[in-house]
Amino acid sequence: MSAPRRLEAVGEIRRRLDLEAAGSEMLALVERLYPIPRSLTGNGVRETLRILVEDLPQSAWEIHEVPSGTQVLDWQVPDEWNVREAWIQGPSGEIVVDFRDSSLHLLGYSEPVEATLSLEELKARCFTLPEQPDLIPYRTSYYRRTWGFCLPHRQLESLPEGDYRVKIDANLEPGSLTYGEIFFPGETPEEALISCHVCHPALANDNLSGLAVGRTLARLLAEDAAPRRYGYRILFLPGTLGAITWLARNRETAGRIHHGLVAANLGDSGALNFKRSRRETTALDRAAALALRDRCEEGHPFRGEFHVEPFVPFGYDERQYGSPGFDLAVGSLTRTPWGRYPEYHTSADRPELLSAGALGDSLAAYLEVLAVLEGEAAYRSLNPHGEPQLGKRGLYRSIGGDDAGREKELALLWVLNQSDGEHSLMDIAERSGLAFAALRAAANALLDADLLEEV
Amino acid sequence: MSAPRRLEAVGEIRRRLDLEAAGSEMLALVERLYPIPRSLTGNGVRETLRILVEDLPQSAWEIHEVPSGTQVLDWQVPDEWNVREAWIQGPSGEIVVDFRDSSLHLLGYSEPVEATLSLEELKARCFTLPEQPDLIPYRTSYYRRTWGFCLPHRQLESLPEGDYRVKIDANLEPGSLTYGEIFFPGETPEEALISCHVCHPALANDNLSGLAVGRTLARLLAEDAAPRRYGYRILFLPGTLGAITWLARNRETAGRIHHGLVAANLGDSGALNFKRSRRETTALDRAAALALRDRCEEGHPFRGEFHVEPFVPFGYDERQYGSPGFDLAVGSLTRTPWGRYPEYHTSADRPELLSAGALGDSLAAYLEVLAVLEGEAAYRSLNPHGEPQLGKRGLYRSIGGDDAGREKELALLWVLNQSDGEHSLMDIAERSGLAFAALRAAANALLDADLLEEV
Amino acid sequence: MSAPRRLEAVGEIRRRLDLEAAGSEMLALVERLYPIPRSLTGNGVRETLRILVEDLPQSAWEIHEVPSGTQVLDWQVPDEWNVREAWIQGPSGEIVVDFRDSSLHLLGYSEPVEATLSLEELKARCFTLPEQPDLIPYRTSYYRRTWGFCLPHRQLESLPEGDYRVKIDANLEPGSLTYGEIFFPGETPEEALISCHVCHPALANDNLSGLAVGRTLARLLAEDAAPRRYGYRILFLPGTLGAITWLARNRETAGRIHHGLVAANLGDSGALNFKRSRRETTALDRAAALALRDRCEEGHPFRGEFHVEPFVPFGYDERQYGSPGFDLAVGSLTRTPWGRYPEYHTSADRPELLSAGALGDSLAAYLEVLAVLEGEAAYRSLNPHGEPQLGKRGLYRSIGGDDAGREKELALLWVLNQSDGEHSLMDIAERSGLAFAALRAAANALLDADLLEEV
Repeated sequence: MSAPRRLEAVGEIRRRLDLEAAGSEMLALVERLYPIPRSLTGNGVRETLRILVEDLPQSAWEIHEVPSGTQVLDWQVPDEWNVREAWIQGPSGEIVVDFRDSSLHLLGYSEPVEATLSLEELKARCFTLPEQPDLIPYRTSYYRRTWGFCLPHRQLESLPEGDYRVKIDANLEPGSLTYGEIFFPGETPEEALISCHVCHPALANDNLSGLAVGRTLARLLAEDAAPRRYGYRILFLPGTLGAITWLARNRETAGRIHHGLVAANLGDSGALNFKRSRRETTALDRAAALALRDRCEEGHPFRGEFHVEPFVPFGYDERQYGSPGFDLAVGSLTRTPWGRYPEYHTSADRPELLSAGALGDSLAAYLEVLAVLEGEAAYRSLNPHGEPQLGKRGLYRSIGGDDAGREKELALLWVLNQSDGEHSLMDIAERSGLAFAALRAAANALLDADLLEEV
Repeated sequence: MSAPRRLEAVGEIRRRLDLEAAGSEMLALVERLYPIPRSLTGNGVRETLRILVEDLPQSAWEIHEVPSGTQVLDWQVPDEWNVREAWIQGPSGEIVVDFRDSSLHLLGYSEPVEATLSLEELKARCFTLPEQPDLIPYRTSYYRRTWGFCLPHRQLESLPEGDYRVKIDANLEPGSLTYGEIFFPGETPEEALISCHVCHPALANDNLSGLAVGRTLARLLAEDAAPRRYGYRILFLPGTLGAITWLARNRETAGRIHHGLVAANLGDSGALNFKRSRRETTALDRAAALALRDRCEEGHPFRGEFHVEPFVPFGYDERQYGSPGFDLAVGSLTRTPWGRYPEYHTSADRPELLSAGALGDSLAAYLEVLAVLEGEAAYRSLNPHGEPQLGKRGLYRSIGGDDAGREKELALLWVLNQSDGEHSLMDIAERSGLAFAALRAAANALLDADLLEEV
Repeated sequence: MSAPRRLEAVGEIRRRLDLEAAGSEMLALVERLYPIPRSLTGNGVRETLRILVEDLPQSAWEIHEVPSGTQVLDWQVPDEWNVREAWIQGPSGEIVVDFRDSSLHLLGYSEPVEATLSLEELKARCFTLPEQPDLIPYRTSYYRRTWGFCLPHRQLESLPEGDYRVKIDANLEPGSLTYGEIFFPGETPEEALISCHVCHPALANDNLSGLAVGRTLARLLAEDAAPRRYGYRILFLPGTLGAITWLARNRETAGRIHHGLVAANLGDSGALNFKRSRRETTALDRAAALALRDRCEEGHPFRGEFHVEPFVPFGYDERQYGSPGFDLAVGSLTRTPWGRYPEYHTSADRPELLSAGALGDSLAAYLEVLAVLEGEAAYRSLNPHGEPQLGKRGLYRSIGGDDAGREKELALLWVLNQSDGEHSLMDIAERSGLAFAALRAAANALLDADLLEEV
């Protein structure tokens, strides 16, 4: 297998992909994972990870357990949290809030408690969304020990005066932080990273959608035998502390990451949104912008508009990968970004919010970005003086003035004209406006005709 | 006093400033200076300077006298001009134009003359504004010896035929050019320059407003004991030749000027206008653009729109400071720029055109620009790998998902993320869109928490 | 003759030019050349070249003949093609298509043939434009041996069933490729190139208009004795292969080309269009953009809107000059570009499509671009500290506040301010928005006053 062919491995996976089937499978996975209670640590995370890797060869994945108290960079791994039951009982004896109905009802990392409170005391322990009075908010208190409940504002307002019994039967004790890691080696030591946060409880778009896309990418890479330039590393880890833990334990590996994407919010119907890496102009940043541009197709429900946004040091784990000491070329590719859809971090972020079509399209977009990065290369024309005669090599129309095959020719002419060793295919795609894939195909044809050499 | 605190000295002056009182005081100063006849040289300039420095410690200021004939760069200091009286007497004996009514009536630097002229001969000696027929224009002839009068076009047109007596009783003889210089030393040898032209006669916005702002800045700096990074040098000098004279006599000092502003047209109701320095992208240019951006407040009468314009080699004395041999980082911060308001260089540029509010706001803007330049610094995060845990240092919300204090956190996160020694607070303010003052405050908090070091 | 004067030689030609006379003369030349059948090679090209150089001193031009079979870069010079007659005879014996009516009727480089065909067989040999059914298309098959006819679609559709006799009496045999080259040396070894394709048959805008402009430029240069900075080389050559042939035979000369323009489509009524060189920011690219900007004049039929477009590696011979091995600073200055007017490459591209006004204006634009490149220089102010006193040198208004002569002063001030050896007149023209010619004149005045030195 020659060099140019190798650079097409991920592009081939994308071209072979049955988007519809993949989308349906991802939606089913989201529905399966939805009821499992997850948090920063605990058995819900373990159960989720077990499902995510169940189709993959065991040699490709590892589940890590990092003991509570371990120092990770500036942080310490906290105690592990597992909830058995949690509820509020009203004055007349009925259970008014129950963790079994939704894991969102409990403030994440609540301490165990069993007490009787007046309505006023209870309210001081409750979190609601007054502007979305029918929804339960998602709240946590990982680093300050406390306890509390989350419930619809309308419900809290309607609670009668009286005594309330509350019980939180939870373990908050030394244990471990759990994360999953999948790796497929490439032909070079450089790696591509996909990072998905696994800590959110009953929230579908944020981030079961990211887990589903990450898991499916892993399966597609596992199934494809063609050699790839980059190693592919897919992480399922709790947000912030998981990324910090991984970075603390993998400094050398981190130095080999050529590009990466943080995957979240990938199932809603919004347009794709690429958030640049801290350095803003890395190969990743350019590849993502090109791939999104190239996929635009007027009138297509998922391939229309897209957004490219600057890096900001808040959001998901790109803020850790993009901390100044690591400064990795990691951006985030989502559909509607965090905080910009009304269901975000509420009980309305349910599997019904997602569609197989959107999930499949998100997966396709990930493959398209990765294919650009795999296919990127710079060449030198072996006939740089004047245009080579394409006609005698079967690469050109024979009748001057005829328009058939014009687009392929333009790609050939652009690659030949710019291939002075200084301009890569991404450079040419940016300058010409032609699709990266068309230029990649033209470069392959010119390599076959011995008109180019790799730089 | 620690390093970060020092960088807040000018910001503190601004925060403590009583804008209303300062504005009223400046307007009163303009009214006091208005009747004094000024020109390139002469006693009117001396009298004006005496008033401008009267509140300042004598150690801080100096009035310079540079003899006529002194070579200053490519120029020579001209003779000194002082007018005792100047008038035109009409055919019927009445005085129709009198210097005592307005110093604008006399062509600046008119030679002494006593003569009788026909109406036609008189008209050849008169300057008017046919399109603003009720206003007296401002005209000078510093370098070609001649004489003339300025008057309303309507008045000139209505003069009857007959003989006119004209008299200009003026001294135009060797003397000196006078300018004032105020200086407050800083902790470093680098200096900030404020330059105001003092040569204009009865014109209030151009430039008694600039003198008032310059004088008040001087008083505020004199009254504040906190150490400042930069020395502050405030010049009151005749336009063009004054700046050329100062530059000729202060080449070494000129080399220490880190940034400077030419102050004029600061009392009218127009939006603030920053004209960049010749180099366009100096610290001054960036600081002024940031300070103006940060002060925008929708609906505020003085803190709304603003303009930033490119350098052009004409206008006020920025053209001398920005001549290629000096190339100083000196811009000009005005309200409506020269030539763009109808009263410009006419008898309608009176104190009534100015307001205390506009003058106070202009002073505030000067302090805000200077505070950015004082507060500018670059830091290096002492915890660059991953985010440091702000919560354990009391710098972060404890409940995830809660929005209170979000803005302060963003400033902390931006400073931490960008502090790799390569990005200064101005860089971060430009990239993040956050106010420089908020980032300065965040850097102070992070310095206090030992999370940053100065580069 | 001093340095600054020399830099005005082309500007002077432009200022002296009688545009109306030049335009009429060019239109007459187009009409004279129109009936001559041209192709990649052959006697029509020879006849055209003979006319193009007939007014020029013989020392200035050369007609080259390059034998068939000569290897030129990646290509070979093909056989020479000359047509004696070519026609289609209908079933009833009448001639329905005749080469004598239009040289477009024959597919360029058609092999000789004499045959009888059914209507269906004939149609397989015919090229038409179904969407422009009354026009004959322009088609060639230089590198694949075949034959065919071009005719209006409506005519082809109306042909009755029956037997058709076709005859093409043509030589397609070893001979030579012919091109013309004109050269006027300059004071430096660097050269300016004007390249015009001479291969198109009965097409007036594309490219008899380019030949007319190129020929007239040559005559103007021949008639002007003033020394010029650049040598001027004007090529009349068949498209693609002609440029490749010239480049193959003139590698050393190619290395001396400082800038060049490919001339075509210069007689239609469209706006001027400059297509940048491959490097996009060469002196040529900047000069062309400035010259087009400076000539805009609201309401003027030819000096209004203009376009500047990026380089693309297709179009005319700029694609050969801009191949990566040569990478010359060659752009293309046209009116409506190829392919964007409905008459393009059809029998409707006739002399009637052109006007003397448009041809004259195109010639003027060429001279204006070339004048900027001739006049470009960087200077150093000999009085860089403060402004020099222009008044004492007669370069400034004597009465301050008066507006006469203001524009000339601005040009003087810009040149003085920017002349630190780092900024050329093109830099200043771009920054100031002032016309290059005004800055060139200001620099001349300042050189005369000993205020500048050349860098």
